[in-house]
Amino acid sequence: MIKTAIVGATGYVGEELVRILCAHTQAEISYITSHSNIGQKYSEIYQSFSHIIPDVCLEENLQELAEKVDVIFIALPHGIACKKINKNILEKTKIIDLGADFRIKSKQTYEEWYKTGHESPELLEEAVYGLVEWKRDRIKNARLVANPGCYTTCSILSLLPVVKEGIIDTETIVIDAKSGITGAGKSLSPGTHFTECNESMKAYKIASHRHTPEIEQELSEFAGKQVKLTFTPNLIPIQRGILCSCYAKLTDKSVTYEDIREIYLKYYEKEYFIRITEKDTYPETRWVRNSNFYDIGFKVDKRTGNLIVIGAIDNLVKGASGQAVQNMNIMFGLDEKTGLQTVPVCL
Amino acid sequence: MIKTAIVGATGYVGEELVRILCAHTQAEISYITSHSNIGQKYSEIYQSFSHIIPDVCLEENLQELAEKVDVIFIALPHGIACKKINKNILEKTKIIDLGADFRIKSKQTYEEWYKTGHESPELLEEAVYGLVEWKRDRIKNARLVANPGCYTTCSILSLLPVVKEGIIDTETIVIDAKSGITGAGKSLSPGTHFTECNESMKAYKIASHRHTPEIEQELSEFAGKQVKLTFTPNLIPIQRGILCSCYAKLTDKSVTYEDIREIYLKYYEKEYFIRITEKDTYPETRWVRNSNFYDIGFKVDKRTGNLIVIGAIDNLVKGASGQAVQNMNIMFGLDEKTGLQTVPVCL
Amino acid sequence: MIKTAIVGATGYVGEELVRILCAHTQAEISYITSHSNIGQKYSEIYQSFSHIIPDVCLEENLQELAEKVDVIFIALPHGIACKKINKNILEKTKIIDLGADFRIKSKQTYEEWYKTGHESPELLEEAVYGLVEWKRDRIKNARLVANPGCYTTCSILSLLPVVKEGIIDTETIVIDAKSGITGAGKSLSPGTHFTECNESMKAYKIASHRHTPEIEQELSEFAGKQVKLTFTPNLIPIQRGILCSCYAKLTDKSVTYEDIREIYLKYYEKEYFIRITEKDTYPETRWVRNSNFYDIGFKVDKRTGNLIVIGAIDNLVKGASGQAVQNMNIMFGLDEKTGLQTVPVCL
Amino acid sequence: MIKTAIVGATGYVGEELVRILCAHTQAEISYITSHSNIGQKYSEIYQSFSHIIPDVCLEENLQELAEKVDVIFIALPHGIACKKINKNILEKTKIIDLGADFRIKSKQTYEEWYKTGHESPELLEEAVYGLVEWKRDRIKNARLVANPGCYTTCSILSLLPVVKEGIIDTETIVIDAKSGITGAGKSLSPGTHFTECNESMKAYKIASHRHTPEIEQELSEFAGKQVKLTFTPNLIPIQRGILCSCYAKLTDKSVTYEDIREIYLKYYEKEYFIRITEKDTYPETRWVRNSNFYDIGFKVDKRTGNLIVIGAIDNLVKGASGQAVQNMNIMFGLDEKTGLQTVPVCL
Repeated sequence: MIKTAIVGATGYVGEELVRILCAHTQAEISYITSHSNIGQKYSEIYQSFSHIIPDVCLEENLQELAEKVDVIFIALPHGIACKKINKNILEKTKIIDLGADFRIKSKQTYEEWYKTGHESPELLEEAVYGLVEWKRDRIKNARLVANPGCYTTCSILSLLPVVKEGIIDTETIVIDAKSGITGAGKSLSPGTHFTECNESMKAYKIASHRHTPEIEQELSEFAGKQVKLTFTPNLIPIQRGILCSCYAKLTDKSVTYEDIREIYLKYYEKEYFIRITEKDTYPETRWVRNSNFYDIGFKVDKRTGNLIVIGAIDNLVKGASGQAVQNMNIMFGLDEKTGLQTVPVCL
Repeated sequence: MIKTAIVGATGYVGEELVRILCAHTQAEISYITSHSNIGQKYSEIYQSFSHIIPDVCLEENLQELAEKVDVIFIALPHGIACKKINKNILEKTKIIDLGADFRIKSKQTYEEWYKTGHESPELLEEAVYGLVEWKRDRIKNARLVANPGCYTTCSILSLLPVVKEGIIDTETIVIDAKSGITGAGKSLSPGTHFTECNESMKAYKIASHRHTPEIEQELSEFAGKQVKLTFTPNLIPIQRGILCSCYAKLTDKSVTYEDIREIYLKYYEKEYFIRITEKDTYPETRWVRNSNFYDIGFKVDKRTGNLIVIGAIDNLVKGASGQAVQNMNIMFGLDEKTGLQTVPVCL
Repeated sequence: MIKTAIVGATGYVGEELVRILCAHTQAEISYITSHSNIGQKYSEIYQSFSHIIPDVCLEENLQELAEKVDVIFIALPHGIACKKINKNILEKTKIIDLGADFRIKSKQTYEEWYKTGHESPELLEEAVYGLVEWKRDRIKNARLVANPGCYTTCSILSLLPVVKEGIIDTETIVIDAKSGITGAGKSLSPGTHFTECNESMKAYKIASHRHTPEIEQELSEFAGKQVKLTFTPNLIPIQRGILCSCYAKLTDKSVTYEDIREIYLKYYEKEYFIRITEKDTYPETRWVRNSNFYDIGFKVDKRTGNLIVIGAIDNLVKGASGQAVQNMNIMFGLDEKTGLQTVPVCL
Repeated sequence: MIKTAIVGATGYVGEELVRILCAHTQAEISYITSHSNIGQKYSEIYQSFSHIIPDVCLEENLQELAEKVDVIFIALPHGIACKKINKNILEKTKIIDLGADFRIKSKQTYEEWYKTGHESPELLEEAVYGLVEWKRDRIKNARLVANPGCYTTCSILSLLPVVKEGIIDTETIVIDAKSGITGAGKSLSPGTHFTECNESMKAYKIASHRHTPEIEQELSEFAGKQVKLTFTPNLIPIQRGILCSCYAKLTDKSVTYEDIREIYLKYYEKEYFIRITEKDTYPETRWVRNSNFYDIGFKVDKRTGNLIVIGAIDNLVKGASGQAVQNMNIMFGLDEKTGLQTVPVCL
């Protein structure tokens, strides 16, 4: 059994990780920590775990945990993990960081977008961006995996095949993404108070959301040139789900739906967690809810020469904790699907 | 592996059964039937099952299925199962009926409340009412299990201990129950059209809902006398969840919270799927969502001499398909929890 | 034009009052105050008022306002109004208090339930409980009106006719009430964070909610004897609406639906804001949403001898600010309906 | 008083029209018709109108109505109005058609997108496209007004100023629009069954929605050249609201936020129903809910040279019935705001 520790277990991403690992047949939760709930039973914070988990929340001590467990999942706000992780720890245990600190390869870009210094730039090169379907080989031997963000997972998976094949003009990419409200986390704020977001919709952080450079970094790597794009996130009053609508001009107007389909099949046909919808049907977030699936559909708009790609994930699973477990499975040589084969809860 | 067939697999209760059985380690789905989708792939109807289930919906033929599988789950509207099941079939396979046809022991009561004839009254005695926590012994050897209704499961579990102990006046029982909208099923109707039920609440079928005689039957059995009660169902704009608020006068005004707690512990302390909340906290449906748990809390109102008991379940799991699988596990000598130890999805 | 001031205008009840008064043809908003937003434009806090209201939030000074306006609406948490109002102020202006401080006639009962001292007990006798349909005559000449609570308005209107006629056993009254989340107000709390209350239901403050003594006080007055009852509030994930289900034993089992209907017609037939549903149909909160209507339906359960009465209001309108304006209209000799004849927003 | 008739009064657009006209001081509802509810009281279909409207639904007869009323509102599915309206009728009364039949000037374009013949092409030229803020002069003297669609109103208002000023490259326009579910109307369908759309999001009719040619027609008129764009509608589980996110490349990369703001102010500063948000704040649908306001905000993405414009309306008001009443007000020489000055219901 793989021994795991979850640091920051009482946030939403942490809770989802605990939930998923409870059903994992090859891993066990050895320690859970929570800064704000030290000494409290986990099942008192999330009563859903009553009769399931007897664990008490501990104070976080990465140094100590590194001695005791095989892998540490870190689910903390950005800016903290990079202060706590160091080479010494990485020699003793593996780390999967669900925060943003090791996703951006460029220290400068990180500091620009996150408005904070990066305290362990020496680890940036070693860290592997854990977008499983595209980075499996590197993840296999990684000691430090930077688990991708929710919007980014959905956006990058939607665009990489066509970017890599050079079939869209990367100067024209626009992503309009919609997220359920768990994406905003557990902290109270007027914008996530039930009565102030229910029955409403809004765009926010237009062209300034921190997932933008992360998407650009990955697309650029596979495009072989610098990609810059416009990214707009929207808040939608549902619990879970991200829907990304990606727009770009086709480089060649004669390209057909079937051509595009062939490209996506080339990269994704053998992926268990990626499902391509039938022609003229598009993903709905309910079909992936509570699962690690990523669903994708697309349309060629002959009239304008645009390609439209729609991707859907569950932000807490494929967009966070599910993908983290998928990464763990690969790092420990397990079947990637272990513990993740839950059927989406569509009702 | 237990071979199972699911008759009526495309309704909501059927879908949930397919979902749960997909994760069951000791049972497999051999056949799924659907009157209205014969020949269609199941994953086209519920795209959540894409990459998971390749099955095609068959036409239902109970006689044939009985030869081929170990157990048939029937998830059909009332009045149909009782036409199709007979002793011959029961000699070949086990049946778990998720509909209402074999729940009510009295043919006359059934016909009064359901406004239809009962076509196989000869099976009513044999049928075992599958309320697991109270009928395990009989379920073990049953050939035909009548799986309880959703409101009824929640109501009966909430009241049986205090009814059995004679600590409440059974002439004063009132149940005010609230249900999410999956409880109303898949059939289209104005009352479940999004825009006509969202952001609204209503009571319906007050003192005339068909779950009433079922609750009364079970309470009467353990009370040792005829119980009649007032039952009000309410429709609430959420997907899943039943919250039952049960009210009754205590027979002795000196009874305390601790006395009541002791009674519930006596019957429920060892039950994995029953969780009693701490004093002055009450169940919330989110804590049981997507799970087979039943949560219960209670309050003694000293001022009025009333006991208030609050129970919560997921109507599609403990209130239908989860309990059906729990019944199957018992009928086949498995650990009752097999396939049902999912953590509630509280987010 | 009646000059009005709204104290506490940025809470939800305050906002609704501003909204309603904007459309009032005989009253104008002269001052709005907000402790936490002094100096800020009201339309920055609630952008819905952009292009409608140029007002800036002032610091509250009751003494000064009393000199300048005809009526002051106070929408503050309990315990504050009773410190600020005094006879001197009441000689200069009228007060409609939307908080709880002057609703309970007994200082002792108030202090027991609200766990705080009452600082102006000398005004309790003078204060008129503003339940319009039952207290019009007293409201007409009142200087200080205590506007009823939301749950209480719905509960009392539902029960008074049958309590007054002595047709139910007041020792058996149970009220199971459900409220939308605006009822919990604007203050942030985990229980009203979108992701922690959406798609869930719960009961809270069972048999201990502060609206209980208020309901009992009014029912007792018309019953001619002390009434004690069990009251359970529930939180439902919608914006607006209260649905009260009231249960009680009929004193005479031969009473029919038509008898009950006749009683309700006797008291309510001429009331514009009270609508009795047809037999076997019941109120839905959507039919009263955003309006000052109170809808009522009922059922006689012959099997158990119970009367079930269902009432529905919009908690922010008839349950708060709408009724406050209705009170103002009466106090100033206007047609009671002025400014309140909006059609419910059912979609 | 202007005498009005509403044809198709029981659909959602019809209901909203009835609701708005009930509060109109210069117009009265003389007749309401409903094909599917002839002879039924309107308040039985929408109980919200109980105590407000005693009207019974009539059979529609345009010829007769034309003799009796000053204006007929037609709220019918497309393809019907164009069969019923003719020059004879227009000589007797004014028509405001809330359907699609007279919006598209080109018979051929209409027939291509709507897959049906157009039966009164001779009226296409006369019909005035009722986008008030841009066509007031023509509306004033119109006999036949084609009331714009919901998505189209929001899209066109968002883009016209920058299209007219030539500051964006019209070949790069992409509109990602999100709508609440009242936009899908009253007809039952699996996609609008509560349990199948609640807690989910989806795009639909990508690059093939019928509002596309309508948006293109209007933008082209003011661009002075043919505009073609990509339009994606999305279904969001809320009652009301449209949020349109419009993307386009700026023709000149040195353009600043302030430049864009100046352009919008030039066209919209004096418009009561158009509200421009402050820099870095964007519209939320709750701020316009239940009102005739259109809110707009924008962002210049310096990194990519894109302009992003976000518009928000209530689809049933500014996107349908509110705008229809605004048109009526203009056609009859009234203040455009009459009956439409309701404060948005933000809670």
